[in-house]
Amino acid sequence: MWYYSNPASGLDISEVNDAIEEAFAEHGRGNVQMPPKLYVHLEHGDFRTMPAYIPSLDIAGVKIVNVHPENPGIGLPTVMALTVLLDIDTGRPETILNATELTNMRTGAAGAVAAKYLAPTSHATLGLVGSGRQAMAQVNAISREIHVEKVLVWSRNEKNAADFCRNFPDIDCTPAELSRVCEADIVVTTTPTRKPMIKDEWIGEGTHINAIGADAPGKQELDPAILARAEVFVDDPAQAVHSGEINVPISQGLYHQDRIKGTLGEVVIGKKKRESRDEITVFDSTGLAIQDLAIAKVVIRKGGDIELDFSSGI
Amino acid sequence: MWYYSNPASGLDISEVNDAIEEAFAEHGRGNVQMPPKLYVHLEHGDFRTMPAYIPSLDIAGVKIVNVHPENPGIGLPTVMALTVLLDIDTGRPETILNATELTNMRTGAAGAVAAKYLAPTSHATLGLVGSGRQAMAQVNAISREIHVEKVLVWSRNEKNAADFCRNFPDIDCTPAELSRVCEADIVVTTTPTRKPMIKDEWIGEGTHINAIGADAPGKQELDPAILARAEVFVDDPAQAVHSGEINVPISQGLYHQDRIKGTLGEVVIGKKKRESRDEITVFDSTGLAIQDLAIAKVVIRKGGDIELDFSSGI
Repeated sequence: MWYYSNPASGLDISEVNDAIEEAFAEHGRGNVQMPPKLYVHLEHGDFRTMPAYIPSLDIAGVKIVNVHPENPGIGLPTVMALTVLLDIDTGRPETILNATELTNMRTGAAGAVAAKYLAPTSHATLGLVGSGRQAMAQVNAISREIHVEKVLVWSRNEKNAADFCRNFPDIDCTPAELSRVCEADIVVTTTPTRKPMIKDEWIGEGTHINAIGADAPGKQELDPAILARAEVFVDDPAQAVHSGEINVPISQGLYHQDRIKGTLGEVVIGKKKRESRDEITVFDSTGLAIQDLAIAKVVIRKGGDIELDFSSGI
Repeated sequence: MWYYSNPASGLDISEVNDAIEEAFAEHGRGNVQMPPKLYVHLEHGDFRTMPAYIPSLDIAGVKIVNVHPENPGIGLPTVMALTVLLDIDTGRPETILNATELTNMRTGAAGAVAAKYLAPTSHATLGLVGSGRQAMAQVNAISREIHVEKVLVWSRNEKNAADFCRNFPDIDCTPAELSRVCEADIVVTTTPTRKPMIKDEWIGEGTHINAIGADAPGKQELDPAILARAEVFVDDPAQAVHSGEINVPISQGLYHQDRIKGTLGEVVIGKKKRESRDEITVFDSTGLAIQDLAIAKVVIRKGGDIELDFSSGI
């Protein structure tokens, strides 16, 4: 059994995007096993357990990931993760990955796949709502799939937005007002808010939105009126209804799950698509265990750094 | 983050029994979080993901465990397991345990707790149906809680039964016919069968049965007529209905879940009990994530053997 302490280091982002796209394709074809993630609630946050199996990639395992919003106050990330892979023939644990940074990358990659297929244009401006780690992962991943002409970034803290842009010296990146950010071709929301910040009137026809932040019951970033005008694509219907951007509007009767246009997997395999240049499209991302397996598959070719004895009891 | 490669070594079985009993007590009091375990099916077996949190013990985590019946043919155990513990304040992964042997021990301990409270007498004969690792764990654990006067053991393979007894030089242990084994005060079934082997007429009044083997849909060891005569206690109602000894009889309409007398946790806290010397009692064990956390709690006092870097991405 091998442990990978820093598996994100040196990963090729385009390769990760491709792996995630293939995982969504397999999801779209109905070729994966992925029970809905389980939530356990702790005093200051929660943790989620995410098992899956992708037969075509010969990979099976479980990601364990926490969300503790107070962590940054003590110098820890809000989200940390570990992935365990099992040998598919024998069930023996084979690999343990530090998946903290991998989680950021695989979520960024899902945003890139969504932008690739659903953005109104392949030369696009990118508007970022939130300037944390996930915003950075989205820019890194999306810029591999489409030509990003300009990035506009809003943060509650103006300095954070300016700092953010310094990470992308090769991209035209500017801090901007929230309403201005929402005029971009692709809007990416990555905040943990429970009070929708994106107003309906700010979102023009033809916009594509990656709604990333809502990943638990009670979270939402978009005015539900946007969903009423938009075609919504989800990563997984059960998870999106439970904890995605649509979860609060559904529970309030402002959105109905029958209106979901399709899954990102169905988009990747060509079963569903953006129908016109003027359509507003939303990708509601909750994060799937198959994404964690797909990025792990890219990682394990590199070899782990510590071999762990698992012979006891065998 | 620490890895424990051989955490079962040197564990005090009585201490493990006590820890498991306390976990069941907390379960009986409704003080634990434990979503029903998730099953993922692989070509030659399955794996189960079992998250939980026991606030009173300050312990939270996930056990990942496979069941691959063909493994012994290639020199691997049918069941192997890994447990990941998280810091309850921050969600940070703290501990990884090789849980293969711990799984045997904690299941044995549940049988011991059941025998302690439900056996008709504290000086009992023990009848074992099956002579594998779990049968051994049951004898080790039960003999700490009650006085075992004699062990009768049946195995499909007679030599295995004789070999089994050689592991217990201090106990009066004899291979026996299946019908004879079922005359014991406490009968422990640990086979993977899907065809009930224990006939109704073999089980006399006052017998206590630990039904351990059935842990997945389709598995059953007891003639359903035994359940009709018995008071059935389960470890967890949802898991027992889904995959315990009662799962097949329920799906065939031969047993109804309303007839479940209570949980082992309720027995431990005195809310439910054996009502008479003549009653047949059955403990239907499926294996709970809280048992895995409880035994992990005993282990982690010893300290792990390999420290793993989890600083990347933090």
